Amino acid sequence: MDALLLDGHRFAVGRAVEDDLPALVALLSDDPLGTARESRDLQPYLQAFRELDEDPNQLLIAVRDEDDDVVGTLQLSLIPGLARAGAKRLQIEAVRLAAGTRGAGLGQALLEWAHDYGRTHGATLAQLTSDKSRTDAHRFYEKAGYEASHEGFKRRL
Amino acid sequence: MDALLLDGHRFAVGRAVEDDLPALVALLSDDPLGTARESRDLQPYLQAFRELDEDPNQLLIAVRDEDDDVVGTLQLSLIPGLARAGAKRLQIEAVRLAAGTRGAGLGQALLEWAHDYGRTHGATLAQLTSDKSRTDAHRFYEKAGYEASHEGFKRRL
Repeated sequence: MDALLLDGHRFAVGRAVEDDLPALVALLSDDPLGTARESRDLQPYLQAFRELDEDPNQLLIAVRDEDDDVVGTLQLSLIPGLARAGAKRLQIEAVRLAAGTRGAGLGQALLEWAHDYGRTHGATLAQLTSDKSRTDAHRFYEKAGYEASHEGFKRRL
Repeated sequence: MDALLLDGHRFAVGRAVEDDLPALVALLSDDPLGTARESRDLQPYLQAFRELDEDPNQLLIAVRDEDDDVVGTLQLSLIPGLARAGAKRLQIEAVRLAAGTRGAGLGQALLEWAHDYGRTHGATLAQLTSDKSRTDAHRFYEKAGYEASHEGFKRRL
């Protein structure tokens, strides 16, 4: 468990536990895109959480404020690969901060924490995709040193 | 080991083995972007290969022609996650086909094979990113049912 200090407020960053699921799903749902694609049924999330939690290359993060409320989340995946001379990638998915915590630098601090986690685990490249409609998020990632160098393709299976 | 049949030619699709590494690295290097970022030293690839090979959620594929030469590769990662009601993702990285094999439908057949692999392992979403300069590849992915819905951000760590 690490702490981020921002404007005199302390945020705890650590591995999410099963009891965090309702709060994490609420964060995913409270979002212009998430509202349409998340479910009210916790069961599929529980199954996904357990798979995540058992995989040493996956880390689901819960960020807690001083009241111990979950106010942020992101998922980190460590992906070994041959390309770029065997570069290990840190992939960041499903970044969400509670509306009240945005703008104070928590997002940037959390990304820096994630980058440190990646470096500690041997990653030399960080990558993420962001829906083309999330233009505020794009500015946020560019400020954090990311370049929109790639097209992000998705399809249902 | 599966077989793809195209124009009367048989291509074998299967898990890459350590002895395939020189051929796989040659495929990654014989590419407008890869030529600048791959290495002549096999050692970093060997380490990455072993990490990949030990991770049950990673699968590095070698495609062989009828002479048993490696003519294609891609990496598949199964990524559990909470978002989209606990959707498991099939992520596709580092798709390369030898120059002589392109245009005959091998790429599309290989992607379809990959999608089947994903479905068999519970994935409901496939995703990949492609450098913005690879416009031919973008048409190829759109033909395979992908939508360029996301910006793909990367940064060094």
